[in-house]
Amino acid sequence: MRFISDTSFDGISEQLFTLDGVPGVLWTPEGAVGTRPLVLMGHGGGQHKQAPGIATRAHRFVAECGFAVAAVDVPGHGDRPKDEELDRIATENQARAEAGAELAPLIAGFQALVSRRTVPEWRAVLDAVQQLEHVGAGPVGYWGVSLGCGLGVPFVAAEPRVRAAVLGLGGALASAEAAARITVPVEFLVQWDDERVPRHQCLALFDALASAEKTLHANPGKHAEIPAFELDSALRFFARHLG
Amino acid sequence: MRFISDTSFDGISEQLFTLDGVPGVLWTPEGAVGTRPLVLMGHGGGQHKQAPGIATRAHRFVAECGFAVAAVDVPGHGDRPKDEELDRIATENQARAEAGAELAPLIAGFQALVSRRTVPEWRAVLDAVQQLEHVGAGPVGYWGVSLGCGLGVPFVAAEPRVRAAVLGLGGALASAEAAARITVPVEFLVQWDDERVPRHQCLALFDALASAEKTLHANPGKHAEIPAFELDSALRFFARHLG
Repeated sequence: MRFISDTSFDGISEQLFTLDGVPGVLWTPEGAVGTRPLVLMGHGGGQHKQAPGIATRAHRFVAECGFAVAAVDVPGHGDRPKDEELDRIATENQARAEAGAELAPLIAGFQALVSRRTVPEWRAVLDAVQQLEHVGAGPVGYWGVSLGCGLGVPFVAAEPRVRAAVLGLGGALASAEAAARITVPVEFLVQWDDERVPRHQCLALFDALASAEKTLHANPGKHAEIPAFELDSALRFFARHLG
Repeated sequence: MRFISDTSFDGISEQLFTLDGVPGVLWTPEGAVGTRPLVLMGHGGGQHKQAPGIATRAHRFVAECGFAVAAVDVPGHGDRPKDEELDRIATENQARAEAGAELAPLIAGFQALVSRRTVPEWRAVLDAVQQLEHVGAGPVGYWGVSLGCGLGVPFVAAEPRVRAAVLGLGGALASAEAAARITVPVEFLVQWDDERVPRHQCLALFDALASAEKTLHANPGKHAEIPAFELDSALRFFARHLG
């Protein structure tokens, strides 16, 4: 793990790092000492580790809960090099969707492919970050919707350190099998008018989770229109399960 | 409005009253002075105005938000006299259900009948309670699930003073038409394994609400098994919209 930069703003420290070629970011309370809960965040498709939807949430997790938050770029995203295989598949998928193919199976196939790389990458990030004195081996949470759900479900299923997860905007087609291995508490977001993931696919993924405590929050609006009050809810969910 | 008793416990004043033969209860912070938000609560079938599910929630609304909370007995429930017509229909429905009839249409018909009485009764209670110096004409919320949803949907649709409502465990069969006239923010509870109201009926009622802000919270478990954290959520919902 190699640190590239270390800046602070508004009481929050932001450290950029790379780990075996994976670019990442770690946010912690400025001057933090000792073990604390850690939330790993997975970004959406076409986004990156410091996209506004990630950074805004991370800042609140750090500022209001005192957590550490880590995020890394998914292959082919952010500061990672172009990935020819993924690029080719993405281009093919786009062409198929424009030719009238159903979007959900294409997304599902793509996410399954990417998750074979991200699950071990994210587990390695967890190993490295938990070695740091100001993070330590505290309870771990995961937050990710859309692509962050498609990659998050197999990650949470594989990683026993994760004790609670916020997931959503993802369908059963991509993730039902791994979801059936998840037993930790989950808060699951559905956009009622999602134009990318059919509603019944989202409900079926919620259904597939084996967690005894799982709670579905559905709100009107399209894929990208999660209302602001769901961030308040995610904060309280993590505070309850990791705090 | 005639007050029958006035007791206090743990900083909460409980006043029993009757209004035109309807027995009710009003909870307020002890020593409360001046206008405050008021939450009207509708109890479930076979329950009453001071049933544990009502009283526990009311106490937290009063203690943590400083609200006033009112609840009244539904016809044929609590301290109200036996109602021969409703008793007869309930008995007939039970016999039909035991003979294999679908439960949801029977519940829907019964609730429609009862709501023709409760809507004007509850509006009169609102008039009277808002005249009291320690309640006043502040913002009004409604909380009711199951029968409290079946009766609550037509009430919220009819009563412009209600600014926000927690509803749920109810189906579209009973309430879709009135739900389409509701435009205030709604938090809507669904029990994912509800043995009384089919899941698709619950989702369809959520769908029918005309509210721009509506949020569905679904949790595993049967009709009566709403998890405790949903009360925390209802508190924050009302604090956000009435506070």
